Amino acid sequence: MNADEPDTEAGAGLVRVRLDLTYDGTGFAGWAVQPGQRTVQGVVAQALEVLLPNSGPLTVAGRTDAGVHAVGQVAHVDVPTQEWAAIGDVRAKLCGLLPRDVRVSEVRVVPAAFDARFAALWRRYTYRISDAPWGVEPLRRHDTLHWPRTLDEQAMHTAASALLGTHDFAAFCRRRSAGTTIRHLQHLTIQRIGDVLETAVQADAFCHSMVRSLIGALLAVGDGRRSPDWPASLLGRSTRAGDVQVAPPYGLTLVEVGYPPDAQLADRTKTTRSIRAGVRRTT
Amino acid sequence: MNADEPDTEAGAGLVRVRLDLTYDGTGFAGWAVQPGQRTVQGVVAQALEVLLPNSGPLTVAGRTDAGVHAVGQVAHVDVPTQEWAAIGDVRAKLCGLLPRDVRVSEVRVVPAAFDARFAALWRRYTYRISDAPWGVEPLRRHDTLHWPRTLDEQAMHTAASALLGTHDFAAFCRRRSAGTTIRHLQHLTIQRIGDVLETAVQADAFCHSMVRSLIGALLAVGDGRRSPDWPASLLGRSTRAGDVQVAPPYGLTLVEVGYPPDAQLADRTKTTRSIRAGVRRTT
Repeated sequence: MNADEPDTEAGAGLVRVRLDLTYDGTGFAGWAVQPGQRTVQGVVAQALEVLLPNSGPLTVAGRTDAGVHAVGQVAHVDVPTQEWAAIGDVRAKLCGLLPRDVRVSEVRVVPAAFDARFAALWRRYTYRISDAPWGVEPLRRHDTLHWPRTLDEQAMHTAASALLGTHDFAAFCRRRSAGTTIRHLQHLTIQRIGDVLETAVQADAFCHSMVRSLIGALLAVGDGRRSPDWPASLLGRSTRAGDVQVAPPYGLTLVEVGYPPDAQLADRTKTTRSIRAGVRRTT
Repeated sequence: MNADEPDTEAGAGLVRVRLDLTYDGTGFAGWAVQPGQRTVQGVVAQALEVLLPNSGPLTVAGRTDAGVHAVGQVAHVDVPTQEWAAIGDVRAKLCGLLPRDVRVSEVRVVPAAFDARFAALWRRYTYRISDAPWGVEPLRRHDTLHWPRTLDEQAMHTAASALLGTHDFAAFCRRRSAGTTIRHLQHLTIQRIGDVLETAVQADAFCHSMVRSLIGALLAVGDGRRSPDWPASLLGRSTRAGDVQVAPPYGLTLVEVGYPPDAQLADRTKTTRSIRAGVRRTT
Protein backbone atom coordinates (compact mmCIF):
# COMPACT_ATOMS: atom_id res chain seq x y z
CA MET A 1 0.00 0.00 0.00
CA ASN A 2 1.37 3.40 -0.95
CA ALA A 3 -0.03 6.90 -0.39
CA ASP A 4 -2.31 6.47 -3.41
CA GLU A 5 -3.87 3.34 -2.03
CA PRO A 6 -4.42 3.87 1.68
CA ASP A 7 -5.66 0.98 3.73
CA THR A 8 -9.39 0.72 3.16
CA GLU A 9 -10.70 0.48 6.71
CA ALA A 10 -10.40 3.18 9.35
CA GLY A 11 -7.74 2.32 11.91
CA ALA A 12 -7.98 2.12 15.70
CA GLY A 13 -8.59 5.41 17.48
CA LEU A 14 -10.13 6.88 14.30
CA VAL A 15 -13.71 7.43 13.17
CA ARG A 16 -14.55 7.31 9.51
CA VAL A 17 -16.63 10.30 8.46
CA ARG A 18 -18.68 10.54 5.26
CA LEU A 19 -19.12 13.95 3.62
CA ASP A 20 -21.83 14.63 1.04
CA LEU A 21 -20.76 17.50 -1.20
CA THR A 22 -22.36 19.76 -3.78
CA TYR A 23 -20.40 22.20 -5.91
CA ASP A 24 -20.43 24.48 -8.91
CA GLY A 25 -17.37 23.34 -10.84
CA THR A 26 -17.03 26.61 -12.78
CA GLY A 27 -14.44 28.12 -10.46
CA PHE A 28 -12.48 24.93 -9.76
CA ALA A 29 -9.68 23.13 -11.60
CA GLY A 30 -11.51 19.88 -10.82
CA TRP A 31 -11.63 17.77 -7.66
CA ALA A 32 -8.05 16.66 -7.15
CA VAL A 33 -5.44 18.85 -5.46
CA GLN A 34 -3.00 20.40 -7.95
CA PRO A 35 -0.21 22.80 -7.02
CA GLY A 36 -1.19 26.42 -7.53
CA GLN A 37 -4.75 25.56 -8.58
CA ARG A 38 -8.06 26.12 -6.82
CA THR A 39 -9.60 22.64 -6.51
CA VAL A 40 -12.59 21.28 -4.61
CA GLN A 41 -10.42 18.84 -2.67
CA GLY A 42 -8.01 21.63 -1.80
CA VAL A 43 -10.72 23.99 -0.55
CA VAL A 44 -12.47 21.28 1.51
CA ALA A 45 -9.20 19.95 2.93
CA GLN A 46 -8.22 23.47 3.98
CA ALA A 47 -11.50 23.88 5.90
CA LEU A 48 -11.09 20.44 7.51
CA GLU A 49 -7.56 21.32 8.56
CA VAL A 50 -8.89 24.30 10.52
CA LEU A 51 -11.60 22.28 12.28
CA LEU A 52 -10.00 18.84 12.53
CA PRO A 53 -6.24 19.40 12.17
CA ASN A 54 -5.40 15.72 12.61
CA SER A 55 -7.83 14.33 10.04
CA GLY A 56 -6.49 12.18 7.21
CA PRO A 57 -6.64 12.71 3.44
CA LEU A 58 -9.96 12.88 1.59
CA THR A 59 -11.02 9.91 -0.55
CA VAL A 60 -13.68 10.69 -3.13
CA ALA A 61 -16.23 8.70 -5.14
CA GLY A 62 -15.78 10.63 -8.41
CA ARG A 63 -12.65 12.60 -9.27
CA THR A 64 -14.44 15.21 -11.36
CA ASP A 65 -12.51 17.11 -14.05
CA ALA A 66 -12.10 20.88 -14.22
CA GLY A 67 -15.48 22.51 -14.80
CA VAL A 68 -17.57 19.44 -13.92
CA HIS A 69 -20.20 19.99 -11.20
CA ALA A 70 -21.60 17.79 -8.46
CA VAL A 71 -24.80 17.77 -6.46
CA GLY A 72 -24.21 14.37 -4.86
CA GLN A 73 -20.46 13.88 -4.52
CA VAL A 74 -19.34 11.62 -1.66
CA ALA A 75 -16.02 11.61 0.17
CA HIS A 76 -14.66 10.08 3.36
CA VAL A 77 -12.03 11.12 5.84
CA ASP A 78 -10.64 9.53 9.00
CA VAL A 79 -10.62 11.66 12.13
CA PRO A 80 -9.09 10.92 15.55
CA THR A 81 -11.92 9.85 17.88
CA GLN A 82 -11.09 12.49 20.50
CA GLU A 83 -10.97 15.32 17.96
CA TRP A 84 -14.31 14.20 16.54
CA ALA A 85 -15.95 14.05 19.99
CA ALA A 86 -15.06 17.70 20.63
CA ILE A 87 -16.11 19.23 17.30
CA GLY A 88 -19.87 19.80 17.75
CA ASP A 89 -21.92 20.78 14.66
CA VAL A 90 -19.23 20.10 12.08
CA ARG A 91 -21.52 20.67 9.07
CA ALA A 92 -22.46 24.17 10.20
CA LYS A 93 -18.81 24.95 10.94
CA LEU A 94 -17.66 23.61 7.56
CA CYS A 95 -20.35 25.59 5.72
CA GLY A 96 -19.25 28.70 7.59
CA LEU A 97 -15.68 28.23 6.38
CA LEU A 98 -16.36 27.09 2.81
CA PRO A 99 -16.96 29.45 -0.12
CA ARG A 100 -20.48 29.56 -1.57
CA ASP A 101 -19.60 27.46 -4.61
CA VAL A 102 -19.07 24.35 -2.48
CA ARG A 103 -21.37 23.11 0.28
CA VAL A 104 -21.26 20.10 2.58
CA SER A 105 -24.86 18.92 2.73
CA GLU A 106 -24.31 16.06 5.15
CA VAL A 107 -21.61 14.85 7.54
CA ARG A 108 -21.94 11.58 9.44
CA VAL A 109 -19.94 8.81 11.00
CA VAL A 110 -20.01 5.64 8.91
CA PRO A 111 -18.71 2.10 9.52
CA ALA A 112 -14.95 1.70 9.34
CA ALA A 113 -15.47 -0.38 6.17
CA PHE A 114 -17.14 2.46 4.25
CA ASP A 115 -14.94 3.57 1.37
CA ALA A 116 -16.30 6.45 -0.72
CA ARG A 117 -14.43 5.23 -3.79
CA PHE A 118 -14.20 1.45 -3.66
CA ALA A 119 -17.45 0.65 -1.83
CA ALA A 120 -19.56 2.54 -4.40
CA LEU A 121 -21.98 0.35 -6.35
CA TRP A 122 -22.67 2.95 -9.01
CA ARG A 123 -22.27 6.60 -10.01
CA ARG A 124 -24.95 8.61 -11.79
CA TYR A 125 -24.25 11.72 -13.87
CA THR A 126 -26.46 14.06 -15.87
CA TYR A 127 -25.44 16.07 -18.91
CA ARG A 128 -27.54 19.07 -20.00
CA ILE A 129 -27.67 20.27 -23.62
CA SER A 130 -29.77 23.05 -25.15
CA ASP A 131 -30.33 22.90 -28.89
CA ALA A 132 -32.34 26.12 -29.00
CA PRO A 133 -31.07 28.18 -31.95
CA TRP A 134 -30.72 31.20 -29.66
CA GLY A 135 -28.50 29.47 -27.12
CA VAL A 136 -28.81 28.54 -23.46
CA GLU A 137 -31.12 29.96 -20.78
CA PRO A 138 -28.68 32.46 -19.18
CA LEU A 139 -29.44 31.28 -15.62
CA ARG A 140 -28.37 27.75 -16.61
CA ARG A 141 -25.44 28.66 -18.86
CA HIS A 142 -22.93 27.41 -16.27
CA ASP A 143 -24.22 23.81 -16.44
CA THR A 144 -25.70 23.52 -19.94
CA LEU A 145 -23.94 22.99 -23.26
CA HIS A 146 -25.26 24.86 -26.29
CA TRP A 147 -25.54 22.73 -29.41
CA PRO A 148 -26.11 24.86 -32.50
CA ARG A 149 -27.98 22.17 -34.49
CA THR A 150 -31.31 20.51 -33.65
CA LEU A 151 -30.81 17.13 -31.99
CA ASP A 152 -32.87 14.04 -32.76
CA GLU A 153 -33.38 12.57 -29.31
CA GLN A 154 -35.02 9.44 -30.75
CA ALA A 155 -31.87 8.59 -32.71
CA MET A 156 -29.81 9.33 -29.59
CA HIS A 157 -32.05 7.04 -27.54
CA THR A 158 -31.57 4.20 -30.05
CA ALA A 159 -27.79 4.69 -29.94
CA ALA A 160 -27.81 4.86 -26.13
CA SER A 161 -29.78 1.64 -25.72
CA ALA A 162 -27.23 -0.31 -27.76
CA LEU A 163 -24.47 0.75 -25.35
CA LEU A 164 -26.11 -0.67 -22.22
CA GLY A 165 -24.61 -3.64 -20.43
CA THR A 166 -21.12 -4.85 -19.59
CA HIS A 167 -18.58 -3.97 -22.27
CA ASP A 168 -14.99 -2.89 -22.75
CA PHE A 169 -15.36 0.90 -23.03
CA ALA A 170 -11.71 1.47 -24.04
CA ALA A 171 -12.90 3.40 -27.12
CA PHE A 172 -14.51 5.96 -24.78
CA CYS A 173 -11.63 6.26 -22.28
CA ARG A 174 -9.25 9.15 -22.77
CA ARG A 175 -6.22 7.54 -21.15
CA ARG A 176 -5.67 3.82 -21.31
CA SER A 177 -5.16 2.86 -17.69
CA ALA A 178 -3.16 -0.05 -16.35
CA GLY A 179 -6.35 -1.83 -15.27
CA THR A 180 -9.49 -2.92 -17.02
CA THR A 181 -11.73 -0.61 -19.04
CA ILE A 182 -14.64 -3.03 -18.74
CA ARG A 183 -17.59 -1.28 -17.15
CA HIS A 184 -21.24 -2.05 -16.57
CA LEU A 185 -23.36 0.71 -18.13
CA GLN A 186 -26.66 0.47 -16.25
CA HIS A 187 -28.65 3.43 -17.56
CA LEU A 188 -28.25 5.88 -20.42
CA THR A 189 -31.40 7.87 -21.08
CA ILE A 190 -32.18 11.09 -22.94
CA GLN A 191 -35.13 13.23 -21.92
CA ARG A 192 -36.19 16.35 -23.79
CA ILE A 193 -37.86 19.16 -21.83
CA GLY A 194 -38.50 21.95 -24.33
CA ASP A 195 -35.15 22.96 -25.79
CA VAL A 196 -33.13 21.07 -23.18
CA LEU A 197 -31.95 17.47 -23.49
CA GLU A 198 -31.06 15.97 -20.16
CA THR A 199 -28.98 12.83 -20.43
CA ALA A 200 -28.74 10.56 -17.37
CA VAL A 201 -25.98 7.98 -17.28
CA GLN A 202 -25.24 5.42 -14.62
CA ALA A 203 -22.51 2.77 -14.37
CA ASP A 204 -20.62 0.87 -11.69
CA ALA A 205 -17.78 3.28 -12.42
CA PHE A 206 -16.45 5.35 -15.31
CA CYS A 207 -12.96 5.48 -16.72
CA HIS A 208 -11.44 8.86 -17.49
CA SER A 209 -13.62 11.08 -19.76
CA MET A 210 -15.99 8.17 -20.38
CA VAL A 211 -19.21 10.10 -19.69
CA ARG A 212 -18.14 13.05 -21.83
CA SER A 213 -17.02 10.68 -24.63
CA LEU A 214 -20.37 8.88 -24.55
CA ILE A 215 -22.12 12.27 -24.78
CA GLY A 216 -19.82 13.30 -27.63
CA ALA A 217 -20.74 10.13 -29.54
CA LEU A 218 -24.46 10.67 -28.90
CA LEU A 219 -24.21 14.28 -30.12
CA ALA A 220 -22.75 13.02 -33.42
CA VAL A 221 -25.79 10.74 -33.74
CA GLY A 222 -28.24 13.42 -32.61
CA ASP A 223 -27.25 15.92 -35.26
CA GLY A 224 -27.07 13.32 -38.02
CA ARG A 225 -23.31 13.07 -38.56
CA ARG A 226 -23.34 9.43 -37.48
CA SER A 227 -25.88 6.62 -37.58
CA PRO A 228 -27.48 5.36 -34.36
CA ASP A 229 -25.47 2.10 -34.50
CA TRP A 230 -22.11 3.88 -34.64
CA PRO A 231 -21.40 4.36 -30.89
CA ALA A 232 -22.01 0.67 -30.08
CA SER A 233 -19.84 -0.35 -33.05
CA LEU A 234 -16.86 1.15 -31.20
CA LEU A 235 -17.25 -1.16 -28.21
CA GLY A 236 -15.06 -3.81 -29.79
CA ARG A 237 -11.98 -1.59 -29.89
CA SER A 238 -9.18 -1.97 -27.39
CA THR A 239 -7.94 1.63 -27.58
CA ARG A 240 -9.48 5.06 -27.59
CA ALA A 241 -11.49 6.00 -30.70
CA GLY A 242 -9.98 9.24 -31.97
CA ASP A 243 -13.16 10.13 -33.84
CA VAL A 244 -15.20 10.33 -30.63
CA GLN A 245 -15.30 13.93 -29.44
CA VAL A 246 -15.19 14.58 -25.73
CA ALA A 247 -18.09 16.88 -24.81
CA PRO A 248 -17.16 20.00 -22.79
CA PRO A 249 -17.04 19.57 -19.02
CA TYR A 250 -19.50 22.24 -17.91
CA GLY A 251 -22.64 20.35 -19.05
CA LEU A 252 -21.77 17.48 -16.70
CA THR A 253 -22.93 17.01 -13.09
CA LEU A 254 -22.28 14.09 -10.73
CA VAL A 255 -25.74 13.52 -9.28
CA GLU A 256 -25.58 10.51 -6.98
CA VAL A 257 -23.37 7.68 -5.79
CA GLY A 258 -24.92 4.42 -4.61
CA TYR A 259 -23.55 2.22 -1.79
CA PRO A 260 -24.58 -1.19 -0.47
CA PRO A 261 -26.03 -1.74 3.02
CA ASP A 262 -23.44 -1.42 5.81
CA ALA A 263 -23.04 -5.19 6.23
CA GLN A 264 -21.88 -5.52 2.59
CA LEU A 265 -19.42 -2.59 2.52
CA ALA A 266 -16.26 -4.60 3.17
CA ASP A 267 -17.18 -7.25 0.56
CA ARG A 268 -18.01 -4.60 -2.03
CA THR A 269 -14.67 -2.85 -1.49
CA LYS A 270 -12.78 -6.12 -1.83
CA THR A 271 -14.63 -7.00 -5.05
CA THR A 272 -14.11 -3.56 -6.59
CA ARG A 273 -10.41 -3.57 -5.80
CA SER A 274 -9.92 -6.94 -7.40
CA ILE A 275 -11.97 -6.07 -10.53
CA ARG A 276 -10.29 -2.74 -11.10
CA ALA A 277 -6.81 -3.68 -9.91
CA GLY A 278 -4.30 -1.08 -10.92
CA VAL A 279 -6.88 1.45 -12.08
CA ARG A 280 -5.67 4.77 -10.76
CA ARG A 281 -8.33 6.96 -12.24
CA THR A 282 -12.04 6.40 -11.73
CA THR A 283 -14.31 9.37 -12.24
CA MET B 1 -48.30 62.26 -24.46
CA ASN B 2 -44.74 62.80 -23.26
CA ALA B 3 -41.61 60.68 -23.72
CA ASP B 4 -42.67 58.40 -20.87
CA GLU B 5 -45.98 57.66 -22.49
CA PRO B 6 -45.36 57.11 -26.17
CA ASP B 7 -48.32 56.63 -28.41
CA THR B 8 -49.44 53.04 -28.05
CA GLU B 9 -49.81 51.95 -31.65
CA ALA B 10 -46.99 51.70 -34.15
CA GLY B 11 -47.12 54.57 -36.61
CA ALA B 12 -47.18 54.54 -40.40
CA GLY B 13 -44.03 53.21 -42.07
CA LEU B 14 -43.10 51.29 -38.95
CA VAL B 15 -43.45 47.64 -37.97
CA ARG B 16 -43.93 46.71 -34.36
CA VAL B 17 -41.57 43.94 -33.29
CA ARG B 18 -41.95 41.77 -30.20
CA LEU B 19 -38.82 40.49 -28.45
CA ASP B 20 -38.90 37.61 -25.97
CA LEU B 21 -35.98 37.88 -23.60
CA THR B 22 -34.28 35.70 -21.01
CA TYR B 23 -31.54 36.96 -18.70
CA ASP B 24 -29.48 36.28 -15.62
CA GLY B 25 -29.97 39.45 -13.59
CA THR B 26 -26.80 38.94 -11.52
CA GLY B 27 -24.63 41.18 -13.65
CA PHE B 28 -27.24 43.87 -14.37
CA ALA B 29 -28.42 46.94 -12.46
CA GLY B 30 -31.98 45.96 -13.47
CA TRP B 31 -33.91 46.45 -16.70
CA ALA B 32 -34.12 50.21 -17.08
CA VAL B 33 -31.31 52.30 -18.55
CA GLN B 34 -29.37 54.21 -15.89
CA PRO B 35 -26.36 56.40 -16.59
CA GLY B 36 -23.07 54.58 -16.00
CA GLN B 37 -24.77 51.27 -15.15
CA ARG B 38 -24.92 48.00 -17.05
CA THR B 39 -28.63 47.34 -17.56
CA VAL B 40 -30.58 44.82 -19.66
CA GLN B 41 -32.34 47.56 -21.59
CA GLY B 42 -29.01 49.28 -22.22
CA VAL B 43 -27.31 46.14 -23.52
CA VAL B 44 -30.25 45.16 -25.76
CA ALA B 45 -30.72 48.70 -27.06
CA GLN B 46 -27.02 48.85 -27.93
CA ALA B 47 -27.30 45.66 -30.00
CA LEU B 48 -30.47 46.92 -31.70
CA GLU B 49 -28.74 50.18 -32.55
CA VAL B 50 -26.08 48.27 -34.46
CA LEU B 51 -28.58 46.18 -36.43
CA LEU B 52 -31.55 48.55 -36.72
CA PRO B 53 -30.15 52.05 -36.16
CA ASN B 54 -33.51 53.73 -36.70
CA SER B 55 -35.55 51.60 -34.31
CA GLY B 56 -37.45 53.30 -31.50
CA PRO B 57 -37.13 52.89 -27.74
CA LEU B 58 -37.83 49.56 -26.03
CA THR B 59 -41.06 49.15 -24.07
CA VAL B 60 -41.04 46.28 -21.58
CA ALA B 61 -43.67 44.19 -19.77
CA GLY B 62 -41.85 44.05 -16.42
CA ARG B 63 -39.24 46.60 -15.34
CA THR B 64 -37.21 44.18 -13.24
CA ASP B 65 -35.04 45.52 -10.40
CA ALA B 66 -31.30 45.03 -10.06
CA GLY B 67 -30.51 41.34 -9.57
CA VAL B 68 -33.94 40.07 -10.68
CA HIS B 69 -33.90 37.48 -13.49
CA ALA B 70 -36.23 36.73 -16.37
CA VAL B 71 -36.90 33.70 -18.52
CA GLY B 72 -40.00 35.13 -20.20
CA GLN B 73 -39.59 38.90 -20.41
CA VAL B 74 -41.38 40.63 -23.29
CA ALA B 75 -40.53 43.94 -24.95
CA HIS B 76 -41.54 45.72 -28.13
CA VAL B 77 -39.80 48.12 -30.44
CA ASP B 78 -40.90 49.97 -33.58
CA VAL B 79 -38.68 49.59 -36.63
CA PRO B 80 -38.89 51.39 -39.99
CA THR B 81 -40.47 48.99 -42.47
CA GLN B 82 -37.58 49.28 -44.96
CA GLU B 83 -34.94 48.62 -42.31
CA TRP B 84 -36.87 45.58 -41.11
CA ALA B 85 -37.22 44.17 -44.63
CA ALA B 86 -33.45 44.21 -45.08
CA ILE B 87 -32.37 42.69 -41.76
CA GLY B 88 -32.64 38.92 -42.36
CA ASP B 89 -32.32 36.59 -39.34
CA VAL B 90 -32.45 39.26 -36.67
CA ARG B 91 -32.59 36.80 -33.76
CA ALA B 92 -29.35 35.10 -34.80
CA LYS B 93 -27.72 38.49 -35.34
CA LEU B 94 -28.92 39.78 -31.96
CA CYS B 95 -27.70 36.66 -30.17
CA GLY B 96 -24.33 37.06 -31.86
CA LEU B 97 -24.03 40.60 -30.53
CA LEU B 98 -25.45 40.07 -27.03
CA PRO B 99 -23.42 38.83 -24.04
CA ARG B 100 -24.20 35.31 -22.76
CA ASP B 101 -26.20 36.55 -19.76
CA VAL B 102 -28.99 37.88 -21.98
CA ARG B 103 -30.61 36.04 -24.91
CA VAL B 104 -33.38 36.94 -27.30
CA SER B 105 -35.36 33.72 -27.65
CA GLU B 106 -37.90 35.02 -30.16
CA VAL B 107 -38.33 38.02 -32.46
CA ARG B 108 -41.50 38.52 -34.48
CA VAL B 109 -43.67 41.17 -36.06
CA VAL B 110 -46.86 41.77 -34.08
CA PRO B 111 -49.96 43.89 -34.77
CA ALA B 112 -49.49 47.62 -34.42
CA ALA B 113 -51.78 47.49 -31.38
CA PHE B 114 -49.50 45.13 -29.44
CA ASP B 115 -48.05 46.91 -26.41
CA ALA B 116 -45.64 44.83 -24.27
CA ARG B 117 -46.55 46.81 -21.17
CA PHE B 118 -50.15 47.93 -21.44
CA ALA B 119 -51.60 45.02 -23.43
CA ALA B 120 -50.38 42.46 -20.90
CA LEU B 121 -53.16 40.53 -19.14
CA TRP B 122 -50.91 39.15 -16.43
CA ARG B 123 -47.34 38.65 -15.28
CA ARG B 124 -46.08 35.52 -13.55
CA TYR B 125 -42.99 35.38 -11.33
CA THR B 126 -41.33 32.62 -9.35
CA TYR B 127 -39.28 33.03 -6.20
CA ARG B 128 -36.89 30.24 -5.08
CA ILE B 129 -35.95 29.70 -1.44
CA SER B 130 -33.81 26.97 0.10
CA ASP B 131 -34.26 26.32 3.81
CA ALA B 132 -31.60 23.60 3.93
CA PRO B 133 -29.46 24.24 7.02
CA TRP B 134 -26.31 23.98 4.87
CA GLY B 135 -27.37 26.63 2.36
CA VAL B 136 -28.17 26.67 -1.33
CA GLU B 137 -27.20 24.19 -4.05
CA PRO B 138 -24.13 26.02 -5.46
CA LEU B 139 -25.28 25.71 -9.09
CA ARG B 140 -28.51 27.53 -8.18
CA ARG B 141 -27.04 30.08 -5.76
CA HIS B 142 -27.57 32.90 -8.29
CA ASP B 143 -31.36 32.49 -8.30
CA THR B 144 -32.14 31.00 -4.91
CA LEU B 145 -32.42 32.71 -1.51
CA HIS B 146 -31.04 30.87 1.51
CA TRP B 147 -33.32 30.99 4.53
CA PRO B 148 -31.55 29.83 7.67
CA ARG B 149 -34.68 28.58 9.46
CA THR B 150 -37.03 25.76 8.43
CA LEU B 151 -40.12 27.09 6.66
CA ASP B 152 -43.64 25.79 7.23
CA GLU B 153 -45.02 25.74 3.70
CA GLN B 154 -48.50 24.83 4.94
CA ALA B 155 -48.70 28.03 7.01
CA MET B 156 -47.34 29.98 4.02
CA HIS B 157 -49.99 28.40 1.79
CA THR B 158 -52.75 29.45 4.20
CA ALA B 159 -51.41 33.01 4.29
CA ALA B 160 -51.06 33.09 0.50
CA SER B 161 -54.64 31.95 -0.13
CA ALA B 162 -56.03 34.82 1.95
CA LEU B 163 -54.24 37.34 -0.29
CA LEU B 164 -55.86 36.19 -3.54
CA GLY B 165 -58.31 38.41 -5.36
CA THR B 166 -58.64 42.11 -6.09
CA HIS B 167 -57.30 44.27 -3.25
CA ASP B 168 -55.45 47.48 -2.57
CA PHE B 169 -51.87 46.24 -2.17
CA ALA B 170 -50.51 49.59 -0.97
CA ALA B 171 -49.05 47.89 2.12
CA PHE B 172 -46.84 45.82 -0.20
CA CYS B 173 -45.74 48.63 -2.55
CA ARG B 174 -42.41 50.24 -1.85
CA ARG B 175 -43.19 53.62 -3.37
CA ARG B 176 -46.67 55.03 -3.31
CA SER B 177 -47.33 55.90 -6.93
CA ALA B 178 -49.63 58.55 -8.29
CA GLY B 179 -52.05 55.92 -9.60
CA THR B 180 -53.93 53.06 -8.02
CA THR B 181 -52.30 50.26 -6.04
CA ILE B 182 -55.31 48.02 -6.57
CA ARG B 183 -54.22 44.79 -8.22
CA HIS B 184 -55.79 41.45 -8.99
CA LEU B 185 -53.68 38.67 -7.43
CA GLN B 186 -54.58 35.61 -9.46
CA HIS B 187 -52.24 32.91 -8.16
CA LEU B 188 -49.90 32.62 -5.20
CA THR B 189 -48.73 29.08 -4.59
CA ILE B 190 -45.88 27.48 -2.67
CA GLN B 191 -44.43 24.17 -3.75
CA ARG B 192 -41.73 22.35 -1.82
CA ILE B 193 -39.30 20.12 -3.74
CA GLY B 194 -36.87 18.77 -1.18
CA ASP B 195 -35.17 21.73 0.48
CA VAL B 196 -36.41 24.23 -2.09
CA LEU B 197 -39.64 26.20 -1.87
CA GLU B 198 -40.75 27.54 -5.21
CA THR B 199 -43.33 30.28 -4.96
CA ALA B 200 -45.33 31.17 -8.09
CA VAL B 201 -47.20 34.46 -8.13
CA GLN B 202 -49.39 35.89 -10.86
CA ALA B 203 -51.32 39.17 -11.06
CA ASP B 204 -52.60 41.53 -13.73
CA ALA B 205 -49.62 43.70 -12.78
CA PHE B 206 -47.43 44.41 -9.77
CA CYS B 207 -46.56 47.72 -8.19
CA HIS B 208 -42.96 48.38 -7.22
CA SER B 209 -41.42 45.67 -4.97
CA MET B 210 -44.82 44.01 -4.58
CA VAL B 211 -43.67 40.45 -5.33
CA ARG B 212 -40.67 40.73 -3.04
CA SER B 213 -42.83 42.26 -0.29
CA LEU B 214 -45.36 39.42 -0.58
CA ILE B 215 -42.48 36.93 -0.31
CA GLY B 216 -41.09 38.83 2.69
CA ALA B 217 -44.46 38.60 4.42
CA LEU B 218 -44.77 34.88 3.63
CA LEU B 219 -41.26 34.24 4.99
CA ALA B 220 -42.29 35.82 8.30
CA VAL B 221 -45.24 33.40 8.41
CA GLY B 222 -43.16 30.43 7.25
CA ASP B 223 -40.62 30.71 10.05
CA GLY B 224 -43.24 31.38 12.72
CA ARG B 225 -42.63 35.08 13.43
CA ARG B 226 -46.12 35.97 12.19
CA SER B 227 -49.45 34.15 12.08
CA PRO B 228 -50.90 33.01 8.72
CA ASP B 229 -53.60 35.71 8.86
CA TRP B 230 -51.09 38.55 9.21
CA PRO B 231 -50.28 39.26 5.52
CA ALA B 232 -53.97 39.57 4.54
CA SER B 233 -54.59 41.82 7.57
CA LEU B 234 -52.34 44.43 5.91
CA LEU B 235 -54.53 44.69 2.82
CA GLY B 236 -56.69 47.38 4.43
CA ARG B 237 -53.80 49.87 4.75
CA SER B 238 -53.41 52.77 2.37
CA THR B 239 -49.63 53.10 2.75
CA ARG B 240 -46.66 50.81 2.80
CA ALA B 241 -46.37 48.53 5.86
CA GLY B 242 -42.92 49.18 7.33
CA ASP B 243 -42.89 45.81 9.08
CA VAL B 244 -43.02 43.90 5.78
CA GLN B 245 -39.50 43.01 4.74
CA VAL B 246 -38.66 43.09 1.04
CA ALA B 247 -37.07 39.76 0.08
CA PRO B 248 -33.72 40.00 -1.76
CA PRO B 249 -33.93 40.35 -5.56
CA TYR B 250 -31.85 37.37 -6.67
CA GLY B 251 -34.48 34.74 -5.76
CA LEU B 252 -36.96 36.35 -8.16
CA THR B 253 -37.52 35.45 -11.84
CA LEU B 254 -40.09 36.86 -14.28
CA VAL B 255 -41.39 33.69 -15.91
CA GLU B 256 -44.16 34.63 -18.31
CA VAL B 257 -46.34 37.49 -19.51
CA GLY B 258 -49.81 36.78 -20.87
CA TYR B 259 -51.49 38.74 -23.71
CA PRO B 260 -54.99 38.59 -25.19
CA PRO B 261 -55.69 37.45 -28.76
CA ASP B 262 -54.67 39.97 -31.42
CA ALA B 263 -58.22 41.25 -31.96
CA GLN B 264 -58.42 42.34 -28.31
CA LEU B 265 -55.02 44.04 -28.01
CA ALA B 266 -56.21 47.60 -28.57
CA ASP B 267 -59.11 47.23 -26.12
CA ARG B 268 -56.86 45.73 -23.46
CA THR B 269 -54.34 48.56 -23.78
CA LYS B 270 -57.10 51.14 -23.46
CA THR B 271 -58.54 49.45 -20.37
CA THR B 272 -55.15 49.08 -18.69
CA ARG B 273 -54.26 52.70 -19.30
CA SER B 274 -57.53 53.93 -17.80
CA ILE B 275 -57.27 51.62 -14.76
CA ARG B 276 -53.70 52.45 -13.96
CA ALA B 277 -53.75 56.08 -15.05
CA GLY B 278 -50.68 57.89 -13.85
CA VAL B 279 -48.87 54.76 -12.70
CA ARG B 280 -45.26 55.21 -13.81
CA ARG B 281 -43.85 52.06 -12.38
CA THR B 282 -45.20 48.58 -13.06
CA THR B 283 -42.84 45.69 -12.51
